[in-house]
Amino acid sequence: VTDFLRRAADLDAADSLAAFASEFHVPEGVIYLDGNSLGLMPRHVPARIAEVATGEWAEGLIRSWTSAGWFTLPMTVGDRIAPLIGAAVGDVAVGDSTSVNLFKGLAAALHLRPGRRVILADAANFPTDSYMAQGLAALVPGVTVRYVEPGQAAADALADDVAVLLLSHVDYRTAQVQDMAAVTAAAHARGALVLWDLSHTTGAVHCDLTAADADMAVGCTYKYLNGGPGAPAFMWVHPRFARDVQQPLAGWMGHAAPFQFTRDYAPAEGARRLVCGTPQVLSLSALDAALAIWARVDRAALFAKSRAMTSFFIEAVETSCARHGLALVGPRDPAQRGSHVSFDYAHGFEVVQALIARGVIGDFRAPSAMRFGFAPLYLSFTQVAQAVEHLRDVLDTRAWDDDRFRTRAAVT
Amino acid sequence: VTDFLRRAADLDAADSLAAFASEFHVPEGVIYLDGNSLGLMPRHVPARIAEVATGEWAEGLIRSWTSAGWFTLPMTVGDRIAPLIGAAVGDVAVGDSTSVNLFKGLAAALHLRPGRRVILADAANFPTDSYMAQGLAALVPGVTVRYVEPGQAAADALADDVAVLLLSHVDYRTAQVQDMAAVTAAAHARGALVLWDLSHTTGAVHCDLTAADADMAVGCTYKYLNGGPGAPAFMWVHPRFARDVQQPLAGWMGHAAPFQFTRDYAPAEGARRLVCGTPQVLSLSALDAALAIWARVDRAALFAKSRAMTSFFIEAVETSCARHGLALVGPRDPAQRGSHVSFDYAHGFEVVQALIARGVIGDFRAPSAMRFGFAPLYLSFTQVAQAVEHLRDVLDTRAWDDDRFRTRAAVT
Repeated sequence: VTDFLRRAADLDAADSLAAFASEFHVPEGVIYLDGNSLGLMPRHVPARIAEVATGEWAEGLIRSWTSAGWFTLPMTVGDRIAPLIGAAVGDVAVGDSTSVNLFKGLAAALHLRPGRRVILADAANFPTDSYMAQGLAALVPGVTVRYVEPGQAAADALADDVAVLLLSHVDYRTAQVQDMAAVTAAAHARGALVLWDLSHTTGAVHCDLTAADADMAVGCTYKYLNGGPGAPAFMWVHPRFARDVQQPLAGWMGHAAPFQFTRDYAPAEGARRLVCGTPQVLSLSALDAALAIWARVDRAALFAKSRAMTSFFIEAVETSCARHGLALVGPRDPAQRGSHVSFDYAHGFEVVQALIARGVIGDFRAPSAMRFGFAPLYLSFTQVAQAVEHLRDVLDTRAWDDDRFRTRAAVT
Repeated sequence: VTDFLRRAADLDAADSLAAFASEFHVPEGVIYLDGNSLGLMPRHVPARIAEVATGEWAEGLIRSWTSAGWFTLPMTVGDRIAPLIGAAVGDVAVGDSTSVNLFKGLAAALHLRPGRRVILADAANFPTDSYMAQGLAALVPGVTVRYVEPGQAAADALADDVAVLLLSHVDYRTAQVQDMAAVTAAAHARGALVLWDLSHTTGAVHCDLTAADADMAVGCTYKYLNGGPGAPAFMWVHPRFARDVQQPLAGWMGHAAPFQFTRDYAPAEGARRLVCGTPQVLSLSALDAALAIWARVDRAALFAKSRAMTSFFIEAVETSCARHGLALVGPRDPAQRGSHVSFDYAHGFEVVQALIARGVIGDFRAPSAMRFGFAPLYLSFTQVAQAVEHLRDVLDTRAWDDDRFRTRAAVT
């Protein structure tokens, strides 16, 4: 038993959240360091999905729109997310993909800042953020996308023609955490709004949209919130914009009175107007069930565990694998770090494949980052120490140097 | 036993599709005439959803994006829909809501007809069609929405500034079927494109997009395709536009190489570029399973049964309920009729509620239409005749004249 395994056992013994692990299914022989990409399945979710299918759908049929609360589900699911991001109950709408919600938010920001036609997007954002901004710019004459270039601070890239700054709270590669309050204040000082992408934040990293005086946010629910593959995303707009916010995906489910079948769109009150079409009830109900866990989670303990775990992982890797020259990609200060850690390594792709073959599932982000996610709700320090043992072994024995680990599939 | 019940028994005996009914769950005591709003649950679907949750998600985790085909699901599900609408395999993309796909289609049409800035929308469309057009017009300066007014033919409303005509193939209230080839030809003659909403068509009414030389189509999958509540919608664009079509919801899942994480969007080949963000896999997989039935369906027999069934219903209602003055809303010619029938009646709302209380589930569409849907895949003529018996009884006895049937819930 290595020193790190001993220390891990002590850390696990002191972990107030340790019992949550038993609420999730982990495949036999797997150490799952990819909960930042797709969270584990909470064990109670399949029964709930079955109930929705065979009860609400098959038996309730169309009556379930009211009797089972399908109609209000986009908002009641949002209410479960609200405390995790510092939003008020009633202000979070759930539905559509993160991409679609990015479009809603960017367009809404352009509408709220009519004289300004520039979307300032961090070049480090996850690509779909940039793509949605580009799609909007290609659609609306005069709108352009400008980038915060690598190494540049967002605040320094602001200008008087910027309507909205699009920024990830936690960088999907480096895990760098932005100072939400400071960036928001800097943007407001230049008359711009900020749309935060909370995809790598929610459920693992502290976030208080209200305290930061944030404007808008969207986020993903299939990572640390464990909502299931492609689970619907969420969107929040500060209540100060509740009366004025207007988003172009003005579907009937965001209408003030959808069943009056009027020809003209009239937005519902508040965040309900962020909803577009008919919600995908099966996926949304799975998310709803997955989120029920969070009412029992001590969030301060969770965020502290995330920081402790990523720090522990970095120390263990840098100690155990010192001679292989892995380069930490993100911040060393745990206060500035989200819940994943990336190391650059020339053979990173193959190493990740070799680890996956041993049941240690991380992922690879081009061009050369091995990325490991630490979902603090269900991961133990012992699993982290064991993963590092595998990584050390793969590197020491060059187990990665094998043809079967070189194939680059379309999706990893 | 009335004459209609006897005739129904004969029609059922001759129905080559009768065996399909056993593949669907019908609640005890229910005659379901709302399959045009939310289809019944195919009995095999819950097992498939459970497999996706406990197998593909819980066991496969992130690996299922390739190993379980999640990544290609938007297209493989589309391939199951293609034969139902006269589209080629590979040309139908599935995902997002009908509303979101309407937005994609309208924006794509504006891009393909750059000199033209008018969206001509049928005022009789389902409201979300109008709302999405309005949302697009509010976003893009210079774009306006004009309406084909009630009683006006779409062809007569065309003009040289119209980029796209937005039209329902089957009217959601009257069930009027548009002559797709003729309308398309008229639009093309004026230089406009047509975006067809096939929501009330697919799975019940003949449709051949290719033969009609159509441009674009979107449609709903939770009605006659029985994909489950809010199941993802589909979109089709004629392959002649494959290289030029550009839609603004340019999410990473429609990118030519999503896992290269490039900053600039580059659309995938063909219909894949119609996909936006990460698909809601649970809902999409339920739809996928539900669609498997259709490979065994004789579509010509299905469409003929739909026409026979709506004709039978109209005749039975007009005979049995003659003294109550119900007014048929839609066409009398079965060739011009979709698979639902609406009757206007001053107390229509209460009558529908009274029928629902007896287990005969239809729906009500403001201001006064009682709407009854006839899903030809699982409904029997006997059920139709029994429903008419209930309707006659509710009207003859004024059973509808009761306070408990007057409450107008937010959703029906």
